[in-house]
Parts: sequence; C-alpha cells; structure tokens
Amino acid sequence: MVGKEQQCSIECLRNGLIVSCQAEDDDPFNRPESLVLFARAAEMGGAFAIRAQGADNIQAICTTVSLPVMGLTKGKYSDGSVLITEDFEDVERILRAGAQIIAVDATARRRPNGLTGPKFVSEVKRKWGRLLVADISTLEEGLAALDAGADALATTLSGYTPHTRKKIGAEPDWELLMALVSATSGAVIMEGRIWTPAQALRAIRLGAFAVVVGTAITRPRVLTRAFVDALASQEGSA
Amino acid sequence: MVGKEQQCSIECLRNGLIVSCQAEDDDPFNRPESLVLFARAAEMGGAFAIRAQGADNIQAICTTVSLPVMGLTKGKYSDGSVLITEDFEDVERILRAGAQIIAVDATARRRPNGLTGPKFVSEVKRKWGRLLVADISTLEEGLAALDAGADALATTLSGYTPHTRKKIGAEPDWELLMALVSATSGAVIMEGRIWTPAQALRAIRLGAFAVVVGTAITRPRVLTRAFVDALASQEGSA
Repeated sequence: MVGKEQQCSIECLRNGLIVSCQAEDDDPFNRPESLVLFARAAEMGGAFAIRAQGADNIQAICTTVSLPVMGLTKGKYSDGSVLITEDFEDVERILRAGAQIIAVDATARRRPNGLTGPKFVSEVKRKWGRLLVADISTLEEGLAALDAGADALATTLSGYTPHTRKKIGAEPDWELLMALVSATSGAVIMEGRIWTPAQALRAIRLGAFAVVVGTAITRPRVLTRAFVDALASQEGSA
Repeated sequence: MVGKEQQCSIECLRNGLIVSCQAEDDDPFNRPESLVLFARAAEMGGAFAIRAQGADNIQAICTTVSLPVMGLTKGKYSDGSVLITEDFEDVERILRAGAQIIAVDATARRRPNGLTGPKFVSEVKRKWGRLLVADISTLEEGLAALDAGADALATTLSGYTPHTRKKIGAEPDWELLMALVSATSGAVIMEGRIWTPAQALRAIRLGAFAVVVGTAITRPRVLTRAFVDALASQEGSA
C-alpha cells in the first residue's frame, strides 16, 4: 500500500482552499486534540489541505483527517521575527509526524544555522526530495526560492519581514501576488489576511494556485475581538 | 454570596456582542467540552455573553466562563420548524444548568403544549421571574412578546418561520430591526446572518441593543464551506 505522502503532488492543491489550523499561547484551542477538531471541520467543509505547525499538532491532524498536511515549525530570528521551519531537525520532525508537504522560510535572511533561505530550500530538497512550499515576502525571494527547487511559493511572510513590515494592513498583498504570477509559471499560493470568500476568489482570479485561510475560519478569539472592536468604535463615536 | 444570576440585568448586554456557541449533528465540535472552548475564546475576545443550547452544553459553559449565558433548547413544531425552548420542563433544565437568561420562541404559533408564544412567555415570567429574551420573526410578534413580559426581543427567527421564510437570504433582516426599534422602547437584540464586524456595527447604529453572532465566529465547517463554494464558482466560470 502506498502511503498518503506518495499520492499528493502540488496539483492536488490547484484552485483549492488550504485551512490553517493554528492556535497560539493561551488560546483555549492550543492543544493537538482541539486543533484536530478544526482540521476535521475543514475537511468536512471541503478544504483541500491543512496547514499546521508543531510536530505534535501535525501528528494528531494526520492521524485524524485524510487531507494532505502542510507542516511547519515556528522559530525566531535573532531580531525576533518569525522563522518558518528553522533547521533540518525540524524538517525531519515535521515529516516524521506525517506531513506530506513542508513549508519553509525562503527569505534571504541568514538562519541561526548559517544558511540563507534559498540555500536551506535546496538542501532540504536534496536531502528529502519532498514537496516544499517556500514562504516568502517579496518577488525576488520568490524567484530565488523557485531557482533553489521549491515546488510552490506562498505569500505568507509579506508584512512579517523587516523589509515588508510597512505592508501589513487590512488588505492581502495583491501586489505581490500579481508580481509573482506575472514573473513566473510556478505555483503561487496566496496566504495572509484573506478574511472573506470574495477575497479568496479574487486571489484565484488573479492567478493564485491555491489560497490559505486561517484566522477567518479557525481563530474564534481573534474573530470575537474583531466584532467587539467594531462595536466599541460605536461607543467612542456616540 | 450572591449568585451570578443575581448580578445580570438586561443592561449588562447593552452595545455588546453575544457569541452563539452551537454545533449540530456530526459537527466535530458538537460536545460540551468542545463548545466550552468557543465560549472561553469568546470571553477572552471580549464578548458580553454566550448563547448556547442544551442543558449539558449550558452547564459546561457556565462552569467554565464567567459571562452570562443565554440558554435555550431546540425542539420542533409539527411542521418541522425549529421551536426555541419548547416547554416548562426545558426552562427548568436550562435554568438549573446555570443560564442567567432564557431564550424562548415567542411567535404566535401554538406549541405542542397548547400555548402560543405570548402565553408561554407570560407563564415563564410568572413562574420563574428570570430574564427572558423573546425570539421572534415579525414586528407583531415582537410587540406581543413585550406585552407578555419579555425583557428583550431577538430577531432570531426571521427567515425560520413559515410566514417569513421568503426573507431568508444573505442579508440580516434590517427591515425588521428598524421596525422594532421604531415601534418600541424595548431592548431589541439583532440576531441572524450577521457575518461581518461592519454588519454588527450597523445593527447597533440602527438601534439594536446588542448583537448575536454565531456562524461567523464559531462554525469552522460552515465557514470553510463558504470559502470552498466561492472558489468552486471560479471553476464553473473558467
């Protein structure tokens, strides 16, 4: 019998929704057995894949749902910026937990292990040869990641690298999506600040290969806060 | 020490968000211990109250969060329409589970126990004297419920009674909200088809006393489906 990881190619994600099932810190859902419920709900709702972080969460999700899982771990650069899948041992752990796809930071910044994103991407592809999605924040990073052997790009890090921080805002980074789609024939996954079905559809129409949605589906605390803040703005203006 | 139920008046809900934490059938979250996580997330996100159904769920939520809980049970009329809090024994169970507020169907339809909504409302108020929110679908039903002693109205049933079924659509029933706010000085809670913070704010600006949001915060399966359907519409048009 062929394992699930053998059946999944990047084509499995085309025009699909990838639901990011993550929780942080003291979020009530921040346990594998709770995140699994989101993954199961996403599967029942028609998602094509799950994005998840941390070996324990990935393992629990892979055991429960039959969708491909895009796995990652979260580390930090020395300046405190988020670093998606820091080192080789993280890749090993994510794959061992059952992820069929691995997401890695492919920005030009040097990791604590001394490698830049593109160098890390090519090493991970050489060592494991598994499906790899490169999380990037600019067109140049995207092109370099494809050169290094990434199977797909994701716009995940736009707004989260020091050189794109000014971009963070209410809107998804349509500009980056369009630049990537124009400049390459590689698969470009839209991720980051997609709040509505209309925005997800817009991403596909602009040429995105697939769309990742997280908060708008799987973060009830953050969603509650968005509604509460809207109502509080009324009080301020009353 | 005074119990929580003594400290809550309808005023506690003014301009606030009430998060409905419900799951149905084979939804992965349809267990008290999972619904509790949504209630906790809602509390951490700044909700003013929780709306929940079923004594087991209500009890679990009341044990875990310190917000007031608006409790109900779901029954059915003979034609299959939903019936919010069918009989006196349901009221007893909901209150015993710890709900500080009780929601009841106050439409003119006759319950299996023979009582119309307004008569049931007045009997429940007479027997227990507790905070009561009347779920209604029309202006006339709202006025009758206030006459019968309801502490507040909720537009919950617009689109779910045979005489309002044509109203069900993508938009909240702004017309009903405005009619109720114009015709009475009673508290009118906006519930039903509120998908965005902007819609919640609009409800308050139109005079709603508070806003209930359910699916948009606590139904990841339904939310996933909404995104998936949007992406599928692209495939159809491609």
